[in-house]
Parts: sequence; C-alpha cells; structure tokens
Amino acid sequence: MRTEERLSIFALGGVNEIGKNMYAIQYADEILIIDCGGKFPDESLLGIDLIIPDITYLHQNKEKIKGLIVTHGHEDHIGAIPYILKQLNLPIYASPLTLGLIEIKLKEHGLLSDTELNTIQSDTVLQFNEFGVTFFKTNHSIPDCLGIVFHTPEGVVVHTGDFKFDLTPVNNQYPDIHKMADIGSKGVLLLLSESTNAERPGSTPSERMVGEHIEEAFHRAKRKVIISTFASNVHRVQQIVDASIKTNRKLALLGRSMVNVVTVAMEKDYLRIPEGMLIDAQEINRLAPENVTILCTGSQGEPLAALARLASSSYRDVEVLPEDTVIFAASPIPGNERNVSRIIDNLYTLGANVIYGSGSSTGMHVSGHAYQEELKLMLTLMKPKYFIPIHGEFRMLHHHSALAESVGVEKSNIFIIKNGDVVDIQNSVASQTRKIPSGNIYVDGMGIGDVGNIVLRDRKQLSEDGMLVIVITISKVEKKIISGPDTISRGFVYARDSESLIREVNKLASDTVNDLLDANTLQWNVMKQNIKRSIGQYLFTKTKRKPMILPIIIEI
Amino acid sequence: MRTEERLSIFALGGVNEIGKNMYAIQYADEILIIDCGGKFPDESLLGIDLIIPDITYLHQNKEKIKGLIVTHGHEDHIGAIPYILKQLNLPIYASPLTLGLIEIKLKEHGLLSDTELNTIQSDTVLQFNEFGVTFFKTNHSIPDCLGIVFHTPEGVVVHTGDFKFDLTPVNNQYPDIHKMADIGSKGVLLLLSESTNAERPGSTPSERMVGEHIEEAFHRAKRKVIISTFASNVHRVQQIVDASIKTNRKLALLGRSMVNVVTVAMEKDYLRIPEGMLIDAQEINRLAPENVTILCTGSQGEPLAALARLASSSYRDVEVLPEDTVIFAASPIPGNERNVSRIIDNLYTLGANVIYGSGSSTGMHVSGHAYQEELKLMLTLMKPKYFIPIHGEFRMLHHHSALAESVGVEKSNIFIIKNGDVVDIQNSVASQTRKIPSGNIYVDGMGIGDVGNIVLRDRKQLSEDGMLVIVITISKVEKKIISGPDTISRGFVYARDSESLIREVNKLASDTVNDLLDANTLQWNVMKQNIKRSIGQYLFTKTKRKPMILPIIIEI
Repeated sequence: MRTEERLSIFALGGVNEIGKNMYAIQYADEILIIDCGGKFPDESLLGIDLIIPDITYLHQNKEKIKGLIVTHGHEDHIGAIPYILKQLNLPIYASPLTLGLIEIKLKEHGLLSDTELNTIQSDTVLQFNEFGVTFFKTNHSIPDCLGIVFHTPEGVVVHTGDFKFDLTPVNNQYPDIHKMADIGSKGVLLLLSESTNAERPGSTPSERMVGEHIEEAFHRAKRKVIISTFASNVHRVQQIVDASIKTNRKLALLGRSMVNVVTVAMEKDYLRIPEGMLIDAQEINRLAPENVTILCTGSQGEPLAALARLASSSYRDVEVLPEDTVIFAASPIPGNERNVSRIIDNLYTLGANVIYGSGSSTGMHVSGHAYQEELKLMLTLMKPKYFIPIHGEFRMLHHHSALAESVGVEKSNIFIIKNGDVVDIQNSVASQTRKIPSGNIYVDGMGIGDVGNIVLRDRKQLSEDGMLVIVITISKVEKKIISGPDTISRGFVYARDSESLIREVNKLASDTVNDLLDANTLQWNVMKQNIKRSIGQYLFTKTKRKPMILPIIIEI
Repeated sequence: MRTEERLSIFALGGVNEIGKNMYAIQYADEILIIDCGGKFPDESLLGIDLIIPDITYLHQNKEKIKGLIVTHGHEDHIGAIPYILKQLNLPIYASPLTLGLIEIKLKEHGLLSDTELNTIQSDTVLQFNEFGVTFFKTNHSIPDCLGIVFHTPEGVVVHTGDFKFDLTPVNNQYPDIHKMADIGSKGVLLLLSESTNAERPGSTPSERMVGEHIEEAFHRAKRKVIISTFASNVHRVQQIVDASIKTNRKLALLGRSMVNVVTVAMEKDYLRIPEGMLIDAQEINRLAPENVTILCTGSQGEPLAALARLASSSYRDVEVLPEDTVIFAASPIPGNERNVSRIIDNLYTLGANVIYGSGSSTGMHVSGHAYQEELKLMLTLMKPKYFIPIHGEFRMLHHHSALAESVGVEKSNIFIIKNGDVVDIQNSVASQTRKIPSGNIYVDGMGIGDVGNIVLRDRKQLSEDGMLVIVITISKVEKKIISGPDTISRGFVYARDSESLIREVNKLASDTVNDLLDANTLQWNVMKQNIKRSIGQYLFTKTKRKPMILPIIIEI
C-alpha cells in the first residue's frame, strides 16, 4: 500500500433508484467498472425509451479504465452496454450466459466485432496493475451470477451483484457459501450488497417450489397450457420444460426475447430441451391440445408481447380457446398491474382458465432477490468493516443499513450514498466528501441524450392540453395583416365544438397585432408574447385548459 | 303484475371496470337510477380529469326517471352527479352523510339551490308508482352505507351497494343482518352484488383491528405523528381521534378534502371530536411535538396533496423532522405505488420513522369490500333466483359468478353483463338480449365530452414524439415561394442539436412545393400530404421518431 494513494468507490447508477446499475472501483490510476445497466422510464418521461447512466467521469478518465465486469445478464445490469460502448471501447468480463446475452445486444448494434469479450468463471483470477479480482457463485433469477472480490492494496472489497440464497437450486447451481465464509474470515474491508428486498422480512422461497406448482398445474390442465415468464429466468424455463416432458407436451416458444434467450441458454448448456420437443407456432394446431405447451413473453402485460396478442386474439396461427390454461409465472412489477389485469380479463372472456396473482399467492413466482434474513446472512458471512447498501431506492438502502447495524456493523461505518458520491478509503479510514458528475441520459429513438427537460416539459404540456398554432402574415410595406389569422389546433378540442372559440381566438390575435401595428412598434417578440397572453387567458377562462400557443408571424 | 310490462335492469357504468358506477331499474314507464359515479382516467387518457357515464338513454327517457338513489358517498358513486345534474334535473335520495358529501359537490358547481335532496335512513320506505323501495344498513369504508330493496310487480330486486360484514364495527354501525335474512326468506328475484374483492379468499378483518394498530403506533411515537388516510373513511378518522386523545395529542387537519369531510361528518354526528382538540397548522409549532397529531390527505401519493408537500418540505408552517412518525393508514391502489414510494423515500431522507406497506402487512389498513366468504354470506342470506355480479372488472365478475354457483344459484340464472346490456324479466323469466347506448364521457377542464378519440390520439403522438410546424408562403401570382419554409418544433429535439436536421427538413419542404408548383398542380391537400410524407420519412430514418408534422401553406 502506497500511503499517498487512495481507494475510491462510487455509483454512476443504481442507488436511490431501481435500474441502471453501474458501480466503479478506483485505486490510483486504475478504474474497474461493475455492470452497465439501463432503466425503463416511468410514465412521466413521455416518449423516452430507456435511461442510461451519465458517464462524464469515465470520459474524463478514459485511459484509466481497465474493463467492465458484469455480474449477470439482466437488463438493469447490461442494458446500457451498447450505448456506452459507442462512446468508450472497453474490454468486457462476464460469465458464459451473461456474455451470450451481451452478444445479442452487441450484434443488434453492430458492435460485436469491435469489442473484446472475456469469459470468466467463478474460479477465474484476474490480475490488473493494482487489483486482483476473484469471484463467487450466487443464486438469482437468472443463472450464472457472480459476486466479485477486489483484492486492493487497501484491503478486500466485495460486490455481491444480485443474489438470494437458494439451497435447493434448479440445475445444481449452488451458491459458493464456503467460499464466501472464507472471504469473510480473511477480512473484508468494504461490502457492497444489493437491497431490493430489504423491506421484506424472512427468506425468499426456493425456485424449486415454483417448479412443483407448475408441474401440478400442468397435470390438472385439460387442454393447451400457455405459460408466461421472464425469458431470462432460465431455471424457471427449465422447470416448464420438465413439466411439459412429464405431461407429454411439445413446446412452442412465442416472442423474440424468449427465442433469443432460450437459444443462447441451450448453446451454453444452461438449459436442456430434448431433441424434437420444440415446435413452431404453425404446428400447434396439428397436435392434440393436451400435448401442447406454449411458453411466451408478456408476463408484465407488455401490449406488444406475445401474451397480450394471444389475449386479444390477434396472434397469427395461435388461438386461446375455452378450457385452455394460462399461467402467469411472474408477479406484476409495480406499475404494470393495469396492463396485466386487462390481459387477464381478456383471457377470461375467451373462456380460459387463468392462474395469476401477485406474490406467493399462486406459488407460480418467487423473488430472485434476498429478503432480510438472507441479507443478514451475507453481512454475517462477510463481516465487513465498512458497508454500502446498493441496488435500491432510498427506503430499501435505509432498511438494509438497519439490518447491517443489527448484525454488528458500526453505524458510522455505513454509507448510504447517492449516484456520484465517492467513498474514499485511505490508510483504512473511509470518508465520503467528494462528488463526481452523475445523472440520467435519455435514449429516445436513435438519439442519445438529445432529449432534455425542455423537450419533456413541452411534451407534457402537449400531452395534457394540446396546442394551437396561429399564423398571421403581415405586409412590411403596408403595415397590415394580409393573411390570417389562421388557427390550427391539435389535441385541444374538437373542431366542430369549437368554431366560435376559434373565431374569438382569431379576433383576439388580429386585434393584438393591429394594436401593435398602429402603435408602430413592430417588435416580433412583443407581438408574440401579447398574442400568447391574450389568447391564453381567453382559452383558460373558457375551457380551463392551457394548450401550448404557437404564434407564427410572417413578414412579406 | 301486468303481464305485458317487463322489469329491466342495466348498468350505465360499473361493470367490466372499477369506477363510474351507475345502475338503473325500470318497470313500465318508471326508471330509478342507483348511484352516479366518476372514474379516474389511467395514464393513457392524456389530460383527462374524470370519466363519467354516457347517459344518452336517460336523455331519451327523461320523463320516466323518478329519482337517483345513492348507496354511499364515495367518488365512484357520487363523482358524476354534478355533471349529470347539469343535463338532467333529478331528485336525489341518500343517507345523511352521503347527502352531506353530495352537497359539497353541488355547492362547488353552483347547483345546490336547484336540486331536490331527500334524506333517507335504513328504515325509510319510498313509494313510487310502480316500485316500493326499502333499505338495509351495510358496512363499508365510509359510514352510512345502504343496500337497496326494490319491491317491483315482478318481485324483489336487491342492490347491495358496496359492503363488507364487520361484526365489530366502529361507532356501533352494525350491518342489518337480520333484515337481510328476512328479505331473503321472503324471496329475492334478483340480486346485484358488488365484486371488488371476489378474487380474495377468506374474510376482510374488522376496521377495529386498524384502530388497535394505530393506537399502538401512537403510544410508541416519540414526537409528532403524521397520519394519512382516505378522508371519507370516517371510522378510521374516529379511531385516529381516539388514539390522539389517549396519547394526549391535539389534532391538526391538512388538506381540503380532509377538512371538508371531517366538517360534514361532525355536523351530522358521525364523528366525535372533543371541543378544543382541533388546532390550526400554525399552532403546531407552539406545542411540544409529542402532543401533536397531523391528519392529512395524500395517502395515495397524489403529488399536490398535503403529504407529498410535507415530504418535499414545501408545506408552509409545518415541517417533518427527525424521529417524527409518519403512518400510511391506507394501501396504495394499483397504479399509485410509484408515487407513494417516492414520498416514503423523501420522508426517510428527512429522518422520519415511516410505517407503510401494502395489504395487511402493517395492520394499518383493511379493505372495505367483502372477500369471498362474505360475498357467499350475502348470496346465502338473499337466496336470489337470478344474480348479476356488479362493481368490478371482468375477472372479478367471473369469480363472483363462480361463488354464486358454489352456494346454489343456477349457472343459467347468472348474467355477467356489460355496460349497456339490459336484463329483462317478464313473468319471472329473465333474458338478456337488448342493449342501450353506453360509454365513457371525458371531462377535461371545463369541457364535458368535447375530447374524443382524435384529440386523445393527437395528444399521444404529441406526448411521445412532439411536433414540427412548417410554414410556407406562396405567391398566387408568381407561383413561387415568397417566404419560408420556416420550421418550428416542440417536444421533438433540442434546437442546438438539430440545426442540420432542420435545414434538411426545410430543403425537402421547398423541393416538394417547387416540384408541384412547376407541375402547375396547385392542390393544397396533395402539397401538404407530400410534405408530410417526405419529411416524415426523412425524420424517421434520421431519428427513429415520428413527430406530428403540420405543414401550413399560405397563399398571398
């Protein structure tokens, strides 16, 4: 350890939010990045497709970055990779399945050939100038998840990634508990641990429980089974495959991401599907209904996904018929309930038997994130001196801190950070005083970062009250209106109901312009402002709405 | 019974949806309406404030309508009253508290003096030409709820209103179980029963349980208690008052609807608050924090309500301080979770101790709607020949039908109807073959029904991709462009990033116009369509967005 150097840890995304996870660890002139996730916008971000982290700091320190290590293949950990890679060319380190999912994205963005991809396993040892990096296996709702151990000159830093403790995992993907215990007993300086379920008491049930419920439902089903889950939950997909085998059903996959993930998972041997078991959508109707399972995307009610289209009878070649069984093998994420409910209603209308319900009510879903007792187990195994709860909104970080205290971490050694806050550790003493740039970058269509607050504010006004364009042509020479005012409205009121309203708007506009022309003060801005003000007031009195008013004055 | 007449039942709102409840019963030339509710729009209905039922049928049969009977004072049962009364002048029948809440609305709309208001009690008997009407008391999350019994020439029709069975109710508001049993044993032709919780097994706990949890939390609280619940849940408010008395706290009310409802409930004696206990917001800081309860609106995360403003430290005179206790005494309704979570995060940031959680996890909320066992109890008490599940989305109606079957109602005697479907009963035989007009009317600003699908579709496009106005002035005589193209965009892209884009758009527009001017075909529509097409294609290729394009061509 060189006493003038320090170890720094920060988040560019992932704290005080769910999504866009991106953490970094720096010692001297060496930076390693952990994960590079996207975040889906809520309904207030009109028209935005994806949110990715602001990487200004990484741009400023380009030459120091040694690589991106990815803990697992979920969107909130890999979704921003193509956008970041377009700006920074980084070597990527990830486990085989994670890498397979990243490759799909890189292919779509034409980046595959230019990117250095390195496969890691739980026993891989990476050695950079300042860091050694080792790994340990964890359980989660996608296979091949890794926790990361950074062996730095200041001491050991552990990043858990997303995890739960599933002691009866599917496909024997056991967590490396003994390795974790060994890491902890050798001494951990700092633990970063995920906080998603820090509000929930107890422990999350094993994924195997879901398999048992799925198998029961398959045995009871009289005709087709249509089952929807997250494509990336390969263990659940395996259990659906197994239940189909036991009930003598062939399997059709609907939805692009389902086909993509299953293909990668089979290639990399995380998923075993017997030869001849997969069928095309067109083959479904040739089989007896009791010999068919349809595994599809859309468990979150996504309006364009396979399940929504099946429910609205708009999927070519496949129909939901009376007495078919439809299973939601996933809970709706908050915000998606209305879309999910609409699909359930449609499925009931078609006569299907629908198995759904949030939480554990149907046994068709378990969380992939550790509950309180599991978080305490991780904290106890690692016995860290310092602790930073990550991956969660503020209340989750808050509860996770309380859990850390309850198992013996000193309160003053716990840092609840914001994106951009830097925790520095020098000579074994941690402090949090610095900030680096951080924030949200919006991806909208093909543009990255070209949609800002003004554009969003405009969209909000347009979306609530519509707009009104008023065009007036003025003769420079004669100083009078020679055409217009013409008014066009969109998203405001029906034209048929508003003739008198528009007449009055036009009159107000021409009065305003004529007044100013008479006064001989041909100032464009004043004229436009006066039109906006007088028409705005008039419309608000008449309609209680505030459409965007766009006066356009043309001088000939 | 005159054999040529028939009894007809229909919903103008409330089935296959949650909200805008409005049902009607007709015999010969007499119509009675039950409830007149509003519905809050989901995020897809941009800018819409409220949805109310389409009452075309009532307009067409104005002279037949004898009155509006209101079961209770919730928005989804009274919210549309002012809008409907502006079109149809109806006498209203409701219990004292319900009427008090209706009066607040009528006052706001200047309708109070013109409306005939009739107070009813559970023992009131109304006699119209064809109908007798009696009532029975039920429990719900607002006091003074009534079920309705229509004594028609065809037989007895029962409408439950919203209900649960709370056998240990607050303020001794017991349900009329013996009366219900008596109605059932005399014979019920048709039951209409609410279905909100038909998906939930078991029974809902008593409101009294919430009181016990509130009292415990008040005893544990070290400083101020800030508690939020639905203003209309007067029983819960009473329990908050009682817990405040027991812990020696004065009570401040924040939020307009809280003040309104508490005032009405005190006037009508549904709520008892000791003299001198209520304080103003300004007085809070003069008392020791352990002697203060703040009861406020905003439990659903409404961004402008008192609790959201307290959480963002923007409420004048009142601050949330470390170790204050904040209680959410209401579960978030699906769709509101994100807003609620944001407020909880803010409250934790201020150092408050926050008690929250959905469902029964904290014991601070119970549902006001019957669960499956209670629905079965109602069905068993009433023993109806015919059954129509009401008040719920399709899957709820579906589950409620299954419950009815399970307690002995004939499957063929159950009607799952849509809004506008009419169930006719003639000579004791029911059938459903007719439809009357029904639908959603949007209230937006001051306008009722002047926002239609075109306006909403425009708002959606504007909200996602913004818009582009292109103005070109053409000389009629010279057949050439004399001003423009000028392009103005809003909600699309930053101007600074898009100079070259806009230059190209202008060039495309003038090329298109010049081509047509050369061809001597001055057709406005063709010109506009060509501009839209060429610019639309160009922008989509460049930005993957589809802004609304508005070409404006001015001829001088």
